[in-house]
Amino acid sequence: MPTAATVSLPDSAPTLLAWPTRFRAVRNQSQALCAPLLPEDTVVQPTLDVSPPKWHLAHTTWFWETFLLREFAPGYQEFHPQYAYLFNSYYNSLGSRVNRADRGTLSRPALAEVLAYRAHVDAAMLALLDCDAELPEAFYELLELGLQHEQQHQELLATDIKYILSTSPLAPEYLPAHSLPAVPNTAPPMAWLPVPGGVHRIGFQEEGFCFDNELAAHDVLLAPFELQNRLVTNAEYLEFIEAGGYRDFRYWMGEGWDLAQTQGWEAPLYWVQQAGGWFRFTHHGLRPVEMAAPVTHISFYEADAYANWAGARLPTEAEWEAAARHFESTTTAGTWLESSFFDPQPVPVDASPNECHQLLGDCWEWTYSAYHAYPGYARAAGALGEYNGKFMVNQLVLRGGSCATPESHIRVSYRNFFHADKRWQFTGLRLARTENN
Amino acid sequence: MPTAATVSLPDSAPTLLAWPTRFRAVRNQSQALCAPLLPEDTVVQPTLDVSPPKWHLAHTTWFWETFLLREFAPGYQEFHPQYAYLFNSYYNSLGSRVNRADRGTLSRPALAEVLAYRAHVDAAMLALLDCDAELPEAFYELLELGLQHEQQHQELLATDIKYILSTSPLAPEYLPAHSLPAVPNTAPPMAWLPVPGGVHRIGFQEEGFCFDNELAAHDVLLAPFELQNRLVTNAEYLEFIEAGGYRDFRYWMGEGWDLAQTQGWEAPLYWVQQAGGWFRFTHHGLRPVEMAAPVTHISFYEADAYANWAGARLPTEAEWEAAARHFESTTTAGTWLESSFFDPQPVPVDASPNECHQLLGDCWEWTYSAYHAYPGYARAAGALGEYNGKFMVNQLVLRGGSCATPESHIRVSYRNFFHADKRWQFTGLRLARTENN
Amino acid sequence: MPTAATVSLPDSAPTLLAWPTRFRAVRNQSQALCAPLLPEDTVVQPTLDVSPPKWHLAHTTWFWETFLLREFAPGYQEFHPQYAYLFNSYYNSLGSRVNRADRGTLSRPALAEVLAYRAHVDAAMLALLDCDAELPEAFYELLELGLQHEQQHQELLATDIKYILSTSPLAPEYLPAHSLPAVPNTAPPMAWLPVPGGVHRIGFQEEGFCFDNELAAHDVLLAPFELQNRLVTNAEYLEFIEAGGYRDFRYWMGEGWDLAQTQGWEAPLYWVQQAGGWFRFTHHGLRPVEMAAPVTHISFYEADAYANWAGARLPTEAEWEAAARHFESTTTAGTWLESSFFDPQPVPVDASPNECHQLLGDCWEWTYSAYHAYPGYARAAGALGEYNGKFMVNQLVLRGGSCATPESHIRVSYRNFFHADKRWQFTGLRLARTENN
Amino acid sequence: MPTAATVSLPDSAPTLLAWPTRFRAVRNQSQALCAPLLPEDTVVQPTLDVSPPKWHLAHTTWFWETFLLREFAPGYQEFHPQYAYLFNSYYNSLGSRVNRADRGTLSRPALAEVLAYRAHVDAAMLALLDCDAELPEAFYELLELGLQHEQQHQELLATDIKYILSTSPLAPEYLPAHSLPAVPNTAPPMAWLPVPGGVHRIGFQEEGFCFDNELAAHDVLLAPFELQNRLVTNAEYLEFIEAGGYRDFRYWMGEGWDLAQTQGWEAPLYWVQQAGGWFRFTHHGLRPVEMAAPVTHISFYEADAYANWAGARLPTEAEWEAAARHFESTTTAGTWLESSFFDPQPVPVDASPNECHQLLGDCWEWTYSAYHAYPGYARAAGALGEYNGKFMVNQLVLRGGSCATPESHIRVSYRNFFHADKRWQFTGLRLARTENN
Repeated sequence: MPTAATVSLPDSAPTLLAWPTRFRAVRNQSQALCAPLLPEDTVVQPTLDVSPPKWHLAHTTWFWETFLLREFAPGYQEFHPQYAYLFNSYYNSLGSRVNRADRGTLSRPALAEVLAYRAHVDAAMLALLDCDAELPEAFYELLELGLQHEQQHQELLATDIKYILSTSPLAPEYLPAHSLPAVPNTAPPMAWLPVPGGVHRIGFQEEGFCFDNELAAHDVLLAPFELQNRLVTNAEYLEFIEAGGYRDFRYWMGEGWDLAQTQGWEAPLYWVQQAGGWFRFTHHGLRPVEMAAPVTHISFYEADAYANWAGARLPTEAEWEAAARHFESTTTAGTWLESSFFDPQPVPVDASPNECHQLLGDCWEWTYSAYHAYPGYARAAGALGEYNGKFMVNQLVLRGGSCATPESHIRVSYRNFFHADKRWQFTGLRLARTENN
Repeated sequence: MPTAATVSLPDSAPTLLAWPTRFRAVRNQSQALCAPLLPEDTVVQPTLDVSPPKWHLAHTTWFWETFLLREFAPGYQEFHPQYAYLFNSYYNSLGSRVNRADRGTLSRPALAEVLAYRAHVDAAMLALLDCDAELPEAFYELLELGLQHEQQHQELLATDIKYILSTSPLAPEYLPAHSLPAVPNTAPPMAWLPVPGGVHRIGFQEEGFCFDNELAAHDVLLAPFELQNRLVTNAEYLEFIEAGGYRDFRYWMGEGWDLAQTQGWEAPLYWVQQAGGWFRFTHHGLRPVEMAAPVTHISFYEADAYANWAGARLPTEAEWEAAARHFESTTTAGTWLESSFFDPQPVPVDASPNECHQLLGDCWEWTYSAYHAYPGYARAAGALGEYNGKFMVNQLVLRGGSCATPESHIRVSYRNFFHADKRWQFTGLRLARTENN
Repeated sequence: MPTAATVSLPDSAPTLLAWPTRFRAVRNQSQALCAPLLPEDTVVQPTLDVSPPKWHLAHTTWFWETFLLREFAPGYQEFHPQYAYLFNSYYNSLGSRVNRADRGTLSRPALAEVLAYRAHVDAAMLALLDCDAELPEAFYELLELGLQHEQQHQELLATDIKYILSTSPLAPEYLPAHSLPAVPNTAPPMAWLPVPGGVHRIGFQEEGFCFDNELAAHDVLLAPFELQNRLVTNAEYLEFIEAGGYRDFRYWMGEGWDLAQTQGWEAPLYWVQQAGGWFRFTHHGLRPVEMAAPVTHISFYEADAYANWAGARLPTEAEWEAAARHFESTTTAGTWLESSFFDPQPVPVDASPNECHQLLGDCWEWTYSAYHAYPGYARAAGALGEYNGKFMVNQLVLRGGSCATPESHIRVSYRNFFHADKRWQFTGLRLARTENN
Repeated sequence: MPTAATVSLPDSAPTLLAWPTRFRAVRNQSQALCAPLLPEDTVVQPTLDVSPPKWHLAHTTWFWETFLLREFAPGYQEFHPQYAYLFNSYYNSLGSRVNRADRGTLSRPALAEVLAYRAHVDAAMLALLDCDAELPEAFYELLELGLQHEQQHQELLATDIKYILSTSPLAPEYLPAHSLPAVPNTAPPMAWLPVPGGVHRIGFQEEGFCFDNELAAHDVLLAPFELQNRLVTNAEYLEFIEAGGYRDFRYWMGEGWDLAQTQGWEAPLYWVQQAGGWFRFTHHGLRPVEMAAPVTHISFYEADAYANWAGARLPTEAEWEAAARHFESTTTAGTWLESSFFDPQPVPVDASPNECHQLLGDCWEWTYSAYHAYPGYARAAGALGEYNGKFMVNQLVLRGGSCATPESHIRVSYRNFFHADKRWQFTGLRLARTENN
């Protein structure tokens, strides 16, 4: 099994680790993900959504420097006076910055310089963590947020690297394919699992860290519904393709149909049809589409069109979370970033069809819920008020994490969000239906 | 009071009128709205959202021809073989059509020809309605839908005409201003009216017509909240402007902020600052901003920014409908298309602040709810399945109708929807808040 | 023969007419061209190059008001204070103006108002011309320029009207086709006519008016060459089409090839292939392509590709003018605006193949010469310095006038100019070649 | 003096060297230019005109493989089957290729792989050159063309590298500035040197290599004129800036003025105004503008506006070449790529003002001549017919070479060409004037 791209963590649950240990592990993970890359791979931005890997490495470092070291480390010397301009992502509170569209035009600072920046900031952070000084509660909250933030960028690193390598007709491998485990050819049968109606409580209700967008926990009233026991597979999605699903506007949202025509969509992102059948570009080069594995790299529009074609619908985010809480005991562990497969994996053939699989890991699941504030949500004060709140319109919620999400980063209340047209994340779907619907 | 642009209806409630009478009244209303225009005004499309008035006159006619006469009038002769191509709006089921962006490039058929088309179709429709033949139930359902559809285009006619005339620096009057009634300078004080929490039933639950998007009626669970007793006024909105609301990103959604910068927004659409203060372009030329009147022609982004600045929020559509049902007894009648003011009117100074005003009429109220399908919604079969369903993503719900809505067209369950950036409709806002929010 | 669109002039050469007579004739001609239009036709701008006819009618009027009445008519009252903003075309010297792209969005002032503007200005101009006051020489120079300017817009009116009507699938007729004369099916044989080398003098060398861009007259040294005795015909151009000329990049300039692919060019503008063969949209509706008539509505790129395919080349403008002066005695009169055909006409079958036909009228002839200043050219002072000089880069020279040019407007030294991609003018070509080339 | 970026050549004139020696020298020069770069610098394309350095290194190699090795080296094995797709620049004859706009999105093949490609092709070329086999004349013509082609890309490498490094706010140095020679503060006085009128012969008339666009040599008739004795300096250009030249439309071509407004041009490319005055980004970092040095990095529009402001004009290309031939004996050698200054240098203070300086080297000089085919020009057959001919419209001729041109690459008949808006080459100007003009 390839291991170059990930780091091992001690056995114990990560959130129980000492702060310096966790900090080192998370920071190392980001760099480990870039280890298989050439310097050239870390520079380019082939599409607006994708950021250069060295930008991710620098921006996450800028986060520590800006929000923690400048505030809490007396006498901290910033690494370079221009980096605040170069590596601010979207915080208006923190002044002007490089246009997002220009991230891929900057060859400097080069990768080595960015790694030196990381080392400089890591040393300052570890010195701060190791000192005896009493640090205020706010520091530890920002420390936790910084770790979670860096994990979010680890997922983006994984997906952006895939996109970057995919643009070359040479189909380069990020990691060698020969070490991948064999994958079963068939998935367990699809089954509809009932979820009871009534009042369900959703949103973060546990101990520990959550993002502000998971709050406030609140009650929702749901009608009884049914949810599929696993993600939709490539085999099932291929039926949709072969039935002409991409050529029949009746299944599509209007804006999705127009986009699909303009872009010439005929299959998920990364799929190519060759003499011998369908192939996909993966982190391990161009490989045959594995029929039992979940379909991924589809937009909301495609997920929704598939659901219409299949005579069902996408769940709402409240339904998804209510189901995830309902099925907790039978949820099978999924595939994560740490597994270094970088591909959603099939449910084992012998898994019970009466259990609900793949709720966490493998693929983000598109829901039919707009990404809006929960009742009682309030933006934080200061620059971090821009972290989540200003995106709460025109996007859709995805749930459950993916094979590129660090395992310690996910929760059943976790709300991810993308515009309906995005396909470069590990996005998939699971259907819902209501009796007499 | 100007009357050229509207038609009088008999006293009795319109839905009780005989079909031929209603058909004639609705059809005449569309033409009456265009009566004050010159032929040149009926051609242009100064922005993508606006359609030429003669296009509206023809497209509504095409609807009758396509969905009713072709199906139910034996031997009906279509007016012109090319009109199906020219006046189809967005129905993929019905074949290719003029690009929306090209509607304003077509000088032909000219207005007179379009009016001849209307006369041809009206005669055929009235002959059908007057004949003794038994017509199937489906015919009467389409007849009702056609009338509702034409009323929707009457609202668009009113708002598109306003936009068209506004582009000329000559600031032409659609109707003379001298006949407008005096408007009070102050509105009744703003008050927060409580709405109880618990399970509320929303969606269409009455007798008669509704659009498919109002179904199925269903229960929602709401926390107790408070709603403002009237729409936000120009005076209140001006405070936001003068407090720098358009220059402070902290109040704005990210996409809204970027748009406001790009477009140079500094006030609602149609507002201009002149020596003596703020003026607005109206159907009656350029007029001073009336401070007690509701603010209108604002995007969702502006409504939301105002709410953030004011320390409150927009209601969800469920909250709005629950409140409208709750306050039914105290809802004061609003301003409608038939009034020919084409401007939202202030609440009378002596109106009770403990009643909820302007829920219906005056201004569409932005809600913080995405326009998604209700539970149990199903697209209709055939071309009319494209009427509503394919738009159910990336837009926001507006409620309550406006001064450009025909009075007989609105309901508390009525769901209008626009993209967050749209400003050319009569859009306004009313705030909500939750204790401890 | 249709006459509605043109006006008759007295027999004598127009430049010998008294000023008031000429002024009236030219002004009437502009309005006569718009007489067959509906008000709706005068508003639209289906593409950036095309201006609404009522804009042409107003802009030419603005020219008189701005450059003559304001300067020379004491106490002249301008018609409307906003018209200087509305109808300035491109004179930076004269302040801000409506964006060119927005000309077709303005329904007001409507046609009737523009005609009133014309009447107001005409009355003031004629009063000035008729008064006994001594007017300075500069006035008469501007008077002549104003007439020439209005004639230029008459040609644009003819071609813009054609484009406007062509956008409707109804293919409306500007003038009825039934009155057109029969056209011969064959043209006289093509022949190469020799033009001697040596020093030729080009540029304006005669008495009377010329534009500044025709100056200074100067000597050029030419190698001997040959020129075709007539314009390239539709029959000849169709051979190029059928030989795959539009699908073989080897004949094309790089930028032309890319554009042809993007735009899907497969034939000249206005050509459509129907069951019975090739048709063209004309001022007289959709009509069969007349094989003996000159090909028209082609870009420079197409003209140049045709020349490459035919193993010849386009003449330079110096060659064209030298040839026109050389062949003067044998030049046959062409088709002009005044003929109301609005289509280039074939050379009579029995015309001598040893004479050079169609040098003036019928079609503008693309040359392979950039539109640059002649040696000794100097921009005029003031706003009129923007008339010609600022366009002298990135365009190509066309020579000889077209069937939409007023006959009294053209000269052998006349320099017209368009970008290489333009097709909406009556543009055609004639080939040149050099021995051993 | 920095040397890392260039290679030394033996003393003898390069064209007299043996083929293998020249081949090695030219190929090494390309790589030497990239030696100061980091791998990251070789990937990016910050604007459409700029190509990634590793693309230049690969494309020049593709040229040898495609046009020479495939044709003349029996049994040659191409390095990689996809490289023909990846590194074809614009040859339609040779099939599809990467879109120009996407060159900067491809991280692979990485620099090391491109260098391996170069080594593979170099070895094959040298084996071919060293073998005893008789090679046909066509081979040696292509060999010469390949060397000239690679030299053209060396100039582009120098200018593209400058642009790439300039985009970083870090202002990185390509080569250290400390080793640059001192530059004089003043230039010799400007003087007008007369050039006699009459028939001049221009175009290539010598022995050896020329591009097809320099043929056929031909006679032109010129009026007597005067030309400046040196290039326009930064000091002179600064007067234009300070006189408001960038804010006065009267000096500008219309398209240039619009572009200057849109782009916010206020000075040449790379100029920035800081507290202490004007600085320029150079290959040696950000440096003060040297007043005696020629102005460079200006568009045709700026050169033309300067000339208008100065009351003079740009020479035509025929005038420039006639003057260069006339002044041959007094032409002072200029600055070239081999000097590694990468900046045009001032004329020595004590240079004679009666001699014509800087005709070759230092800066390309904008002429007021469109880049069109000379009389008698014929495109070559096959793919190389696309080398020059298809660009012969919509561009302007520049003459004389620049400080980034290899010295052995230039001639008085050499015709370079760019669109009027381009500024990233070392472009400057020299004025001409005609008596009584």
